[in-house]
Amino acid sequence: MNQEGTVAAQPRAPRIVIVGGGFAGLEVAKALGRAGLPAVMLDRQNHHLFQPLLYQVATAALSATDVAEPIRKVLRRYESVQVLLGEVSEIDTARNTLRLADGLVLGYDYLVLATGAGHSYFGHDDWAERAPGLKTLGDARRIRALALLAFERAERAIEPDEQARLMTIAIVGGGPTGVELAGSLAELRRYTLARDFRSARPEAAKIMLIEAGPRILPAFLPETSDYARRRLEKLGVDVFTGTPVEDIGEDTITFAGHTVPVGVVLWAAGVAASPLGAQLGAPTDRAGRVMVDECLRAQGLSNVFVLGDAAAFTDPAGKPLPGLAQVAKQQGIHLGQGLARHIRTGAPLEPFEYRSRGNTAIIGRHAAVFERERLRLKGWIAWLAWAIIHVYLLVGFQHRMMVSLQWLWRYLTFERGARVMTEESFDVRTARLPTRTRTSGK
Amino acid sequence: MNQEGTVAAQPRAPRIVIVGGGFAGLEVAKALGRAGLPAVMLDRQNHHLFQPLLYQVATAALSATDVAEPIRKVLRRYESVQVLLGEVSEIDTARNTLRLADGLVLGYDYLVLATGAGHSYFGHDDWAERAPGLKTLGDARRIRALALLAFERAERAIEPDEQARLMTIAIVGGGPTGVELAGSLAELRRYTLARDFRSARPEAAKIMLIEAGPRILPAFLPETSDYARRRLEKLGVDVFTGTPVEDIGEDTITFAGHTVPVGVVLWAAGVAASPLGAQLGAPTDRAGRVMVDECLRAQGLSNVFVLGDAAAFTDPAGKPLPGLAQVAKQQGIHLGQGLARHIRTGAPLEPFEYRSRGNTAIIGRHAAVFERERLRLKGWIAWLAWAIIHVYLLVGFQHRMMVSLQWLWRYLTFERGARVMTEESFDVRTARLPTRTRTSGK
Repeated sequence: MNQEGTVAAQPRAPRIVIVGGGFAGLEVAKALGRAGLPAVMLDRQNHHLFQPLLYQVATAALSATDVAEPIRKVLRRYESVQVLLGEVSEIDTARNTLRLADGLVLGYDYLVLATGAGHSYFGHDDWAERAPGLKTLGDARRIRALALLAFERAERAIEPDEQARLMTIAIVGGGPTGVELAGSLAELRRYTLARDFRSARPEAAKIMLIEAGPRILPAFLPETSDYARRRLEKLGVDVFTGTPVEDIGEDTITFAGHTVPVGVVLWAAGVAASPLGAQLGAPTDRAGRVMVDECLRAQGLSNVFVLGDAAAFTDPAGKPLPGLAQVAKQQGIHLGQGLARHIRTGAPLEPFEYRSRGNTAIIGRHAAVFERERLRLKGWIAWLAWAIIHVYLLVGFQHRMMVSLQWLWRYLTFERGARVMTEESFDVRTARLPTRTRTSGK
Repeated sequence: MNQEGTVAAQPRAPRIVIVGGGFAGLEVAKALGRAGLPAVMLDRQNHHLFQPLLYQVATAALSATDVAEPIRKVLRRYESVQVLLGEVSEIDTARNTLRLADGLVLGYDYLVLATGAGHSYFGHDDWAERAPGLKTLGDARRIRALALLAFERAERAIEPDEQARLMTIAIVGGGPTGVELAGSLAELRRYTLARDFRSARPEAAKIMLIEAGPRILPAFLPETSDYARRRLEKLGVDVFTGTPVEDIGEDTITFAGHTVPVGVVLWAAGVAASPLGAQLGAPTDRAGRVMVDECLRAQGLSNVFVLGDAAAFTDPAGKPLPGLAQVAKQQGIHLGQGLARHIRTGAPLEPFEYRSRGNTAIIGRHAAVFERERLRLKGWIAWLAWAIIHVYLLVGFQHRMMVSLQWLWRYLTFERGARVMTEESFDVRTARLPTRTRTSGK
């Protein structure tokens, strides 16, 4: 390989570089590969991550490898696509080059930026250490270790107050991720951990879901929010709405004017686009997402496309699209096919149109919500639909089989298969997690 | 809980503390739990590890959670046993107390030390950084990331020599672990990775197994060693015997007077008992194992027992027992039942007798060896026997089902389900693993 990528063998084909192997980038690569067009797929991880199930890794239900697939393996049969592990540090849109963190420079004719989003702590960057968010496999393992460790420490605590504090978990943000974490942790403590401790009583652990807005699941209909709240409360979750978090201390959280002692704080509130987008020089929105035109081009750049959570795409009605896997995936398919056609035949790119497949969130066993236009499901049937759809969407047959079986097992036994911490993820001497060396978000 | 453990409710029962939830410690806890005797199980990890399959986690075949089970969950139904997460830092055999790293002090009437073994680099402690060994889940993830990363870097390498160096893996030590790692990595590169790269050719990766002694698998019969060598060579492994390693450099390994550029070095050679044993003040052997009498008591200490890899037990013929899971397990069962009987009825402890269930090592697909007295199996039949026995021995039905299915899947497809690195396990900027903060061994 030379510095120009791998296209030397086909000198006439334009050089296409895709950054990010998430739902959007992967679809672009597949479409180009199917058309036999050379492309380079760059990611700083070796795996594609099925983010919709990541909360299950964080709550010890699935193992990290169940929801991740090597990008290389997914793209194996597309021989014109080369996968490279690397982190982009600079984009030079004047020279059409990318520089990687380790110095490698790649030229491109077309650049596809699909680098997703990380967390925003609304200016309180010191909260990042104390309240991890959930975007990567590392995040999920960290949250799992934090939660399991809190119960381990509670088992050893001598003072009842300290034991109660350790078993208090606050989740900030009442969107689907916050609701899913709260529901899953509530079930973990009630059904799985309850019989395993002698001194601590995990079933008495306090779980708080704290939302700044007037209701949880704000993207759903008000009656759906009500249903979700009732179901969470039935699981013993304390739901607070209209209560923005004011401070996160070492062992406390402050909201609605009260400071509560807490063992674990998880962050499911703000999202910020990958910082790479800002380097394009194109306009961005408040969350750092690059404004794109109807063909997914970064505004003012004819050969740079931005997709998925990194992009701010406004539909014809003027509404920005939400940060969902299905949006990213549809954009990837649209751009990949359009770009392949454009390169092969010169046909112009067509405007992207989003078709919602419906909105879904899971609250717990037998409790989920699903909305699509006039169709609204909740409870059992939504839960089943959610499970079937998510297994179906998992990349790779082995994952589907394994995840289905683990779910079946958990359903029948109330067990969780992944209640494991490794010595990488916590410091057993202090019973605390090590300081994170970097924040998540790619 | 008070500082004296949890026995306050039954003041007459002696306080028993078990350190280490491996094969030995777990069996002691179960036997005491079955007898309803109070005991505390201390471990610095939250999980029991099925070490015989750990090399499969290291070679991306199984996921970490497939071979680990929360100690708490295993001991759930023994209500008299309390499980605590903690690391012992000091043992005071005069006062019969243990101090944990975080300051907690536990008193004991009987102490069972089953803390296993770590690695010995024969005085070359600087090699530990460059040649990780395989004892913990963290080790396995680290080795997996190192090996996968070497291929990722090779795909990006420009110089053919550098590419060849990166894809050279040296394994030091020709015992079962070394043989299993070599065979499994040879299959990984030949069957699984081969089609996934464009520039690098993983199937051409060089795998070297380096043994100081005259033959690999020295605990087996000479003809078994010959068979294993032939099978490894058929998989493309270069086997070197009678060649002690002289140096491990940053990117090189030196043996038999030659220095070879290398991408990954793995250590499967020396073993050293957990350093905790030395604190007892009882005599230890060269590997730091505590000399125990026929009843598994540390020499000179009537109320301290040492089991498994931490102990040097000599059978009546004067032969020390090998560091095998089956030895540890049998010792745990023997001591647990004996101690329970002793406490309940005053019956004296009986001498431990080891009954070998046979020796086994796996080389690759369809190739394993098994020896037990006059019975010798190799090839297909030994491979099948190995797989069935190991699945049967796995703690927990879910693990059995999942591991069986993953094996079946891999067998049919040549895929591996766990080719995933997380950002915790490597630094993508330099494409190197982070510096380890501690050596393994507990």
